[in-house]
Amino acid sequence: MKTVILIGANGKMGQAALTGLGKHRVITASRSGEGVDYKVDITDKNSIQELYKKVGSFNAVVNTVGVCEYAPFESMTSEQWDTTIQSKLVGQINLVSVGLQYIEDGGSFTLISGILNMKPIPFAIADATTSGAIDTFVKCVAHELPRGIRINVVNPTVLEEAWHVYGEMMPGFQPVPSVLVGKAFERSVDGFISGEVIFVDA
Amino acid sequence: MKTVILIGANGKMGQAALTGLGKHRVITASRSGEGVDYKVDITDKNSIQELYKKVGSFNAVVNTVGVCEYAPFESMTSEQWDTTIQSKLVGQINLVSVGLQYIEDGGSFTLISGILNMKPIPFAIADATTSGAIDTFVKCVAHELPRGIRINVVNPTVLEEAWHVYGEMMPGFQPVPSVLVGKAFERSVDGFISGEVIFVDA
Repeated sequence: MKTVILIGANGKMGQAALTGLGKHRVITASRSGEGVDYKVDITDKNSIQELYKKVGSFNAVVNTVGVCEYAPFESMTSEQWDTTIQSKLVGQINLVSVGLQYIEDGGSFTLISGILNMKPIPFAIADATTSGAIDTFVKCVAHELPRGIRINVVNPTVLEEAWHVYGEMMPGFQPVPSVLVGKAFERSVDGFISGEVIFVDA
Repeated sequence: MKTVILIGANGKMGQAALTGLGKHRVITASRSGEGVDYKVDITDKNSIQELYKKVGSFNAVVNTVGVCEYAPFESMTSEQWDTTIQSKLVGQINLVSVGLQYIEDGGSFTLISGILNMKPIPFAIADATTSGAIDTFVKCVAHELPRGIRINVVNPTVLEEAWHVYGEMMPGFQPVPSVLVGKAFERSVDGFISGEVIFVDA
């Protein structure tokens, strides 16, 4: 049994990840802090450090959050780009850089991107760009991690459970069940792979 | 003959691009403004807008700059990440978003990334991550550009002309001559392709 910190536990993607973490001790966290063990804001390095210190010993970090702004490229503001970059890109990088100081030997980080960097749609340029950045970050940084620590990223398509919200924006996409995304997180946490983008698409 | 704005004209990559732009009217720009037509700081949207306004009518923007900080991942500071993201990622996005208001119908943007997102090496995680982001940005945003405007990115390996500087960091890499990189920029500016990552590697 590992101790796994799950960030964004109450979201649909967090719930999907949770289906794959059944055999572990899962510590939950989210931005609001409601209904979870700890509050954390991944855009704030101090908040991340506080979380890790409070948890103490842990073997895995699973992140399922990253705020993205959606707009046509021509009307997307600098603020919208910045919000997306600071959360989905820099926030996730910080989870790893700060986490390296606290995670146990042989631990793992599992980050989140999203299929829109492979299957672009209108309004999603900031999501796609930062997903491409995170996929690349994971593939490259894996070579640098010390003490047998691994890193992967889950790149899922839309969840069946979220299809009623996003389906209209995503013509021709096939949603996948949460349990399939849970398997991807499980394969990252309980496997030996590192530096991989684990696509979950149909 | 097209009017092409070449940013970073005095750098080695700028000189490489220039070898492919011989048949055009090339307007040069750089951060220092020395020995070029105009001064521009791509991390500053106002500076970019000033450049475009001063040039007036133009058909292509070729960017060859993007500041990257190099360090081992574990010691890379938030400031180093920010410098790299604001220049190589956000700066290049701004060249396009501001440029769309000024570029002629059927014009083109050609951005720059670099092979380290495909062939990672120590110290280059910020370069690699932002290169992956820009490659993704170009592939996805191409679908959104109006008025027949195209966009591509040149992703080169190290230049022969820069091998004495970077060679020691890049064991097993084969440098390429500048004229080959110039061909990539020419193919972007004078071709009809869009949304492509033009790799120049050996």
